[in-house]
Amino acid sequence: MHQVAQNSNSQHIEGHFESSAVVRDIVIGLSDGLTVPFALAAGLSGAVASSHIVVLAGLAEIAAGSIAMGLGGYLAARGDAEHYISERHREEREIVDCTEDEEEEIYEIFERYSVDRAAAAPVLASLKQNPAQWVNFMMRFELGLEEPAANRAHRSALTIAGSYIAGGMIPLLPYMLVSDNLAALKLSVIITLIALALFGALKGKLVGTGWLRNAIQTITIGGAAAAVAYLLARLLNGHAS
Amino acid sequence: MHQVAQNSNSQHIEGHFESSAVVRDIVIGLSDGLTVPFALAAGLSGAVASSHIVVLAGLAEIAAGSIAMGLGGYLAARGDAEHYISERHREEREIVDCTEDEEEEIYEIFERYSVDRAAAAPVLASLKQNPAQWVNFMMRFELGLEEPAANRAHRSALTIAGSYIAGGMIPLLPYMLVSDNLAALKLSVIITLIALALFGALKGKLVGTGWLRNAIQTITIGGAAAAVAYLLARLLNGHAS
Repeated sequence: MHQVAQNSNSQHIEGHFESSAVVRDIVIGLSDGLTVPFALAAGLSGAVASSHIVVLAGLAEIAAGSIAMGLGGYLAARGDAEHYISERHREEREIVDCTEDEEEEIYEIFERYSVDRAAAAPVLASLKQNPAQWVNFMMRFELGLEEPAANRAHRSALTIAGSYIAGGMIPLLPYMLVSDNLAALKLSVIITLIALALFGALKGKLVGTGWLRNAIQTITIGGAAAAVAYLLARLLNGHAS
Repeated sequence: MHQVAQNSNSQHIEGHFESSAVVRDIVIGLSDGLTVPFALAAGLSGAVASSHIVVLAGLAEIAAGSIAMGLGGYLAARGDAEHYISERHREEREIVDCTEDEEEEIYEIFERYSVDRAAAAPVLASLKQNPAQWVNFMMRFELGLEEPAANRAHRSALTIAGSYIAGGMIPLLPYMLVSDNLAALKLSVIITLIALALFGALKGKLVGTGWLRNAIQTITIGGAAAAVAYLLARLLNGHAS
């Protein structure tokens, strides 16, 4: 029940952040990769006769999606790192140039938790003796910023893109192997729903929010996206019954 | 230079969080919406003769992508809210059931910033007089969790999905209006690159990371995704020159 309190707490938090960043990237890539190419292929299979076009569109989508998400993840992570550094430089200047304002900000942080100035004063005195720690304190408690892990951007981009490609190939495989579009669609629906359920269950286990509930969620998202894409493509193609 | 220090700080931070959540959702939806349907349509236009199929695949992708991202955003936001509540309940129990452990955790938080026990003691004494604020303090400073805004999940889902649809329709419009695939592709490239540049510049202005740099980034992502999808589709279709 009280695992956090039992462990060394800072170790626990850091371990949690490290792994959760990679897990989050895999989850981002896989959940979209399993869903969007699946739904696109299902949609097209209801409207075009040739499975060649379904495969073509699916692979083009995987290429576009993995690059968009991977590069997007890269730039987002690099932006986070740069934002952290520039905010840190600003705090470093501010504790020198506007010392009194920054002292006042410390009191304000504690006031939000009904800690009065007298109780906060010893903490401020201690931080003032150690400017580097004062800056660390302001980064975390004033601005709510964590220092991003080094090389996070590259790893994030490759993890997201790789997971998207891996996820996207699963629903496409049947269209590559079976020439009949309807048979391929059925096979694709079956293996993708199984993959979505396994992925959701595993994600629920890892994140700790329950395997069954997460499995139902991932199936719902993938199923809803595929059903809407299928109906839309049929309607537009004049095949609606 | 010191805008943060000049304003009331907590107001500044809250205003920043509120708007950044909506802006972030719009950015998420628009950047993928402008990029992936654009790249898919460009890729297919190099491989299939009929612009009807390009439009069909593009609309199916927009349907699939907006549902996957919108529902995904909804579940992520709801998950955040539930995680916050369950961690809050745990902290509420812990400050009653394992008061000493929780006190020790406060000392540990301050020790990370070289603030010794004597200096931290008055803060602890003050927090102990006000259990609700003690829990607030632990949520923010031990666990690094912010209370999510109410109804965040619904708004997040609709904002992301709407932005994805709006972004995705821009590159598809030429294929709907111009029957020649090559002419439509050229028009789609021009208007989408303009839209990506405007979007990037505006994003850079809003987030404060420079308009030119962000415009170049969004053009790079969209252009790279479209170029790879185009080459891949042509290669697979045996049209490679």
